Amino acid sequence: MSWLPTLQTATPEEGYELAIKLSRMAVKKTQPDDEARARMRPEYANDADSLIASSHVVAVNFHTVSQANDHWRDR
Amino acid sequence: MSWLPTLQTATPEEGYELAIKLSRMAVKKTQPDDEARARMRPEYANDADSLIASSHVVAVNFHTVSQANDHWRDR
Amino acid sequence: MSWLPTLQTATPEEGYELAIKLSRMAVKKTQPDDEARARMRPEYANDADSLIASSHVVAVNFHTVSQANDHWRDR
Amino acid sequence: MSWLPTLQTATPEEGYELAIKLSRMAVKKTQPDDEARARMRPEYANDADSLIASSHVVAVNFHTVSQANDHWRDR
Amino acid sequence: MSWLPTLQTATPEEGYELAIKLSRMAVKKTQPDDEARARMRPEYANDADSLIASSHVVAVNFHTVSQANDHWRDR
Amino acid sequence: MSWLPTLQTATPEEGYELAIKLSRMAVKKTQPDDEARARMRPEYANDADSLIASSHVVAVNFHTVSQANDHWRDR
Repeated sequence: MSWLPTLQTATPEEGYELAIKLSRMAVKKTQPDDEARARMRPEYANDADSLIASSHVVAVNFHTVSQANDHWRDR
Repeated sequence: MSWLPTLQTATPEEGYELAIKLSRMAVKKTQPDDEARARMRPEYANDADSLIASSHVVAVNFHTVSQANDHWRDR
Repeated sequence: MSWLPTLQTATPEEGYELAIKLSRMAVKKTQPDDEARARMRPEYANDADSLIASSHVVAVNFHTVSQANDHWRDR
Repeated sequence: MSWLPTLQTATPEEGYELAIKLSRMAVKKTQPDDEARARMRPEYANDADSLIASSHVVAVNFHTVSQANDHWRDR
Repeated sequence: MSWLPTLQTATPEEGYELAIKLSRMAVKKTQPDDEARARMRPEYANDADSLIASSHVVAVNFHTVSQANDHWRDR
Repeated sequence: MSWLPTLQTATPEEGYELAIKLSRMAVKKTQPDDEARARMRPEYANDADSLIASSHVVAVNFHTVSQANDHWRDR
């Protein structure tokens, strides 16, 4: 099954989780080695600027997901 | 209850607060350790570039929230 | 009174001023200490990259404000 | 007269010039001292990363101006 | 045949792949030497900040591709 | 003749080329000296982070151009 069957989600919170998934998947596509990614984790998870940059990527993806769901307006 | 039940807010100011919440939540999801985040706080709160980068993330999320509320046009 | 009662402004120039205000408010929310912010000012106001980064944040917020005003098309 | 009376321009090229003006104005608002800005100029004009960052800001502002002009579709 | 005949894709996952392609193509246009790009690969693939920056570019391109496909709403 | 007579292009690939042109033009407007730009070229063309940053600018401009062409939907 596809890792991205749809951009539609039941709730904003699920949409946010999808935005995080989209953000991580691009990293995975560039660095497919699980161990290499795990090695970097403590480095960026303890660096304020890396965390802010991560949050920026999630924000862009959340914008896309939110639009795809008409901002969950009717819920 | 969900931390993000809806993107709709009563006022632009509440929408701005939600944008800040969205920005912080991504950081929290990457670094869930409260203490680790607290340790980094004085560092980025006293670094102009980190603050500007934070403001950038809020701006992207505020764009999303503002669209979700039709920019609070009818208020 | 709210610091952000509305995103609607009479003119594009006022919209630009609002974009600057939105950009600064996020900094203020992360670093509420007026003195700390004042201390950083000469640093980033004399650093080309910080100024470019600031201008970037204003650009994102101005995009939001401009959309909220239908780009002041009818004026 | 306002430095930004309207976002509407006759041509895409004029729209691009306006995007540059919008990008520079935010810098000017943060660093109003003409001499200070002039001092920084050779620094960032000879730094590839600063130039790329500048181009990024123009791109965001051009997006706004282009939308404000319906992308000059009917011309 | 064009490397970019259309922005329309059958599925969100294919759209995401196209976003990655769009992100890489700009790099290729600036640095057309395959060997030079290969030399840089281990460097950025093992640098958390470079990976986050890459993911950011994919996010912007995915936004475009997703809009071009009406966010695959009817699928 | 204008260097930017229109944002409309016949194909997505031409639109991508236009996005690259828009990205470079902003650099040229800030650093008009051809020799200075040529001097910087090997530096950023061999720096992964500069290339990623360049690709980011192209992505933003491509978003604008793609919107201006209704994402070439009818082709």
